[in-house]
Amino acid sequence: MTELLAHEKEKAILNAARKRFAHYGFSKVTMDEIAGDIEMGKASLYYYFPAKEDLFKAVIIEEQNEFIKEIERMLKSPISAGEKIHEYVSLRLKYFQSFINLGTAGVHSFHEIKSTFKQLFIDFEEKELTLLMQIAHEGISNNEFCSDCSDKETKVFLHILQGLRLRMLSHLKGQALEAGDYNNLLEEMNIAANIFLKGLKNK
Amino acid sequence: MTELLAHEKEKAILNAARKRFAHYGFSKVTMDEIAGDIEMGKASLYYYFPAKEDLFKAVIIEEQNEFIKEIERMLKSPISAGEKIHEYVSLRLKYFQSFINLGTAGVHSFHEIKSTFKQLFIDFEEKELTLLMQIAHEGISNNEFCSDCSDKETKVFLHILQGLRLRMLSHLKGQALEAGDYNNLLEEMNIAANIFLKGLKNK
Repeated sequence: MTELLAHEKEKAILNAARKRFAHYGFSKVTMDEIAGDIEMGKASLYYYFPAKEDLFKAVIIEEQNEFIKEIERMLKSPISAGEKIHEYVSLRLKYFQSFINLGTAGVHSFHEIKSTFKQLFIDFEEKELTLLMQIAHEGISNNEFCSDCSDKETKVFLHILQGLRLRMLSHLKGQALEAGDYNNLLEEMNIAANIFLKGLKNK
Repeated sequence: MTELLAHEKEKAILNAARKRFAHYGFSKVTMDEIAGDIEMGKASLYYYFPAKEDLFKAVIIEEQNEFIKEIERMLKSPISAGEKIHEYVSLRLKYFQSFINLGTAGVHSFHEIKSTFKQLFIDFEEKELTLLMQIAHEGISNNEFCSDCSDKETKVFLHILQGLRLRMLSHLKGQALEAGDYNNLLEEMNIAANIFLKGLKNK
């Protein structure tokens, strides 16, 4: 590790941490194990991340940023605003599918983690809302959507997506989504998106 | 109690049990206390309800039936299908508001109760779906809704209502909805209903 630059070291730590958290869950991973994975001294690891919570937080922020960047790329593609909504729904679910595997091992412990890092989730919801509103405004200025699509409706649409996922997770009682559940949830979200879009379409 | 008929006794037990469960929660209520409330011998109580679970189940079934009856009455009123959807949303939330107070004292313990009585909730969801589809079909036959409103969409609309509530409960981390939360949730559900209806309206 000695030849790596500081930001490369940090990246190596984050990658190792992400793998561990995803596989064993936040509570079952130790800083020793992560240090061992990348053959780094424990003191070095603590220099970059003073506590396991800091490391977990950094992994989450990185994942959130990756998702936002992916959406921003998609927003530049030459597809209609309606198609962008569906694309958003699908990328979002994919993101959460990898995210829930981040060792949260179930909704209940996920809730505990969530309260520790609440602000992260609030910021993320704000960012998501901005992106969805950008699509809605684009659709209005294109005349693809009628002008009575309010920001309030867009916000409720985001809450609908959140709620449909929570509903599915709550039925699974903390188990991760399997392929069949994932496809059912994606289908439900796309039907919800169609309902939303049917109301918006300019006639 | 001796002069009461069997079905009156049962009703008195159910009323006492409902009050206790609503106030103290399922786990904190004993059969002794319920028997005491109505001055009934414990043996008599056990004759009607062999276990606390049976009593809790009977209270839930009664509440569910009351809700279904209230909806069925509303469905007969001379209002449009669109108004019926909004009325449904509002009665449903009111029902769940009293229901969650049924001593579930939070989402987590509610989940445990839910797994014990899973079939009850599955049956209830089926009944709800039937009622909502009845409104949708009425709207289609009235020419109020366009004919491309599918049963699948109606089902997702029910899941949307369930999801919005779960989302709110999950944010509250197991505390009961207060008046402000309740009003916010009702507003969100009505916006969701408007989104649903905007897509359905015959132009």
